[in-house]
Amino acid sequence: MRGLVLEQGLGLQTDRPKPAPSPQEAIIQVLQAGICSTDLHIVKGYMDFQGVLGHEFVGIVDHAPGNSSLVGKRVVGEINAACHVCPTCQIGRPTHCPNRTTLGIMGRDGAFADYLSLPVENLHLVPDGMTNEQAVFIEPLAATCEIPQLVTIKPKDRVIIIGDGKLGLLCAQVLALAGCHVTLLGRHSEHHAWLIPKGIAVTSEIQEVPPGADIVVEATGRPAGLTMATQLVRPRGTIVLKSTYHGQVLVNMTELVINEISVIGSRCGPFAPALRLLAGEMIEVEPLIHARFSLTDGIKAMEQAAQPGTLKVLLNMS
Amino acid sequence: MRGLVLEQGLGLQTDRPKPAPSPQEAIIQVLQAGICSTDLHIVKGYMDFQGVLGHEFVGIVDHAPGNSSLVGKRVVGEINAACHVCPTCQIGRPTHCPNRTTLGIMGRDGAFADYLSLPVENLHLVPDGMTNEQAVFIEPLAATCEIPQLVTIKPKDRVIIIGDGKLGLLCAQVLALAGCHVTLLGRHSEHHAWLIPKGIAVTSEIQEVPPGADIVVEATGRPAGLTMATQLVRPRGTIVLKSTYHGQVLVNMTELVINEISVIGSRCGPFAPALRLLAGEMIEVEPLIHARFSLTDGIKAMEQAAQPGTLKVLLNMS
Repeated sequence: MRGLVLEQGLGLQTDRPKPAPSPQEAIIQVLQAGICSTDLHIVKGYMDFQGVLGHEFVGIVDHAPGNSSLVGKRVVGEINAACHVCPTCQIGRPTHCPNRTTLGIMGRDGAFADYLSLPVENLHLVPDGMTNEQAVFIEPLAATCEIPQLVTIKPKDRVIIIGDGKLGLLCAQVLALAGCHVTLLGRHSEHHAWLIPKGIAVTSEIQEVPPGADIVVEATGRPAGLTMATQLVRPRGTIVLKSTYHGQVLVNMTELVINEISVIGSRCGPFAPALRLLAGEMIEVEPLIHARFSLTDGIKAMEQAAQPGTLKVLLNMS
Repeated sequence: MRGLVLEQGLGLQTDRPKPAPSPQEAIIQVLQAGICSTDLHIVKGYMDFQGVLGHEFVGIVDHAPGNSSLVGKRVVGEINAACHVCPTCQIGRPTHCPNRTTLGIMGRDGAFADYLSLPVENLHLVPDGMTNEQAVFIEPLAATCEIPQLVTIKPKDRVIIIGDGKLGLLCAQVLALAGCHVTLLGRHSEHHAWLIPKGIAVTSEIQEVPPGADIVVEATGRPAGLTMATQLVRPRGTIVLKSTYHGQVLVNMTELVINEISVIGSRCGPFAPALRLLAGEMIEVEPLIHARFSLTDGIKAMEQAAQPGTLKVLLNMS
């Protein structure tokens, strides 16, 4: 099969072996996949990953030993495969299983290929009315749904999202569903207009954003975003870190202590709420699609995704 | 009056004017005061403070216009004087009032003097059975009580306190009252023995502390303590920052995001619980007293407090 593989460098392989069936896992034929900023970081060395890249996908179950009713069904899949026997799994935190593999990120080939494998329990059926291009957003949308899973967001809260990339644009929409006042702060004003009718305030100037927000989501992936977040959050407020940084970051911890700020890291999230929100048309993803490539042009697609200001780049496997 | 004053340098002044009475404030004759690590940081330039140092004290009300029944009473005092009219005060967070002054730290002369002034509402009566040397610990004990005010601590939790200085030793005692498993990790094994009969595990070797704690309190005041905390906390666990650092600190934020850790800054705390715990003999403070000096020897006292391994140094005003 074909696969966009990171080894010494990034290359398209056409003779990659199809994943081998195993009793608890399903083989999925990938229809479409999305390029995430994490994929770009991995190419630069993040996570020391080698193998097929990609973790955002929609596909058709090709093979599911012991779950033959799944075959032919259209699915999306949670990306962490847990061991289910360690204390972390037993206590109900399988996404933090120390023995886990993660699709296209850690110890498991990913979705930029004709086929991938995942445990059957990771799969979620895609409702008929949902397009593939919508379904491919379920994984990042689930990551956004992790924020209200970790932090109580109240209707009277004032929330600021810093960063108008893919994740920031999804965060702004999801958090606005709480009825709270959401401001999106980001440099790419050309990304903003479609959010305004949803009642989301948008600006590219920090001076226009009154400080003292109850919750600030850092979604820039740059240390400067964290500095801005500490300036914008109120005493005893919460900063949600929604992006990872390369290496270590200089932080003014004294300010966090004096103002008794909570900083909460947030990673992967629950798929079921993301499917409900997208199926119910509470969230719009189409304006985030900036380009479509075939898997054969995967290298070009990755180059395009790395251009500043580019939102989602999709890979079609057909 | 006498006062230990930070101006160009630190010096004892004998002709410092007594604080002027005002309608809402009381004048308190200081009996005894405690030297906090924050005082040592302030001498090095932290907070850009100039004036009389000191914020841990017990004293006798000397003058209280409109509250004459307070005169002659023994009191301790909360250190933040809020404006009570700004939005932060109105919403119930007066300790974060942007217009506040803070005793011996910001905009208000402190407790290393014969007299100080504080708003009447900041004062708490000291129960008769409590010694002055106990009462002077109410302020740092209140700061410790801020941890369970900000973080839910459950009886089945495993808690690690990093740092066996004054604050670490108080934290270990207060958090152990939740019934949780508390380990104190610190370099000064000579500080530990008296905690063992209280059911607190003590060690000076990080290798002896199993990682995966639900809550880790960083009370070393050194960036290395924060690094240790991220190694010891479980995924989705909480790190409480109980110390301030000079300047900026290098932090591995990616680890916080991947493991979805909460980092919560914690500063001053509530006096009433601290008074209850100390009056009820739930907390022991005598083993923390390492030296006593008269105010006249205040410079020597500060030098002693700065010696590594020194716990509380008290100043007697008589």
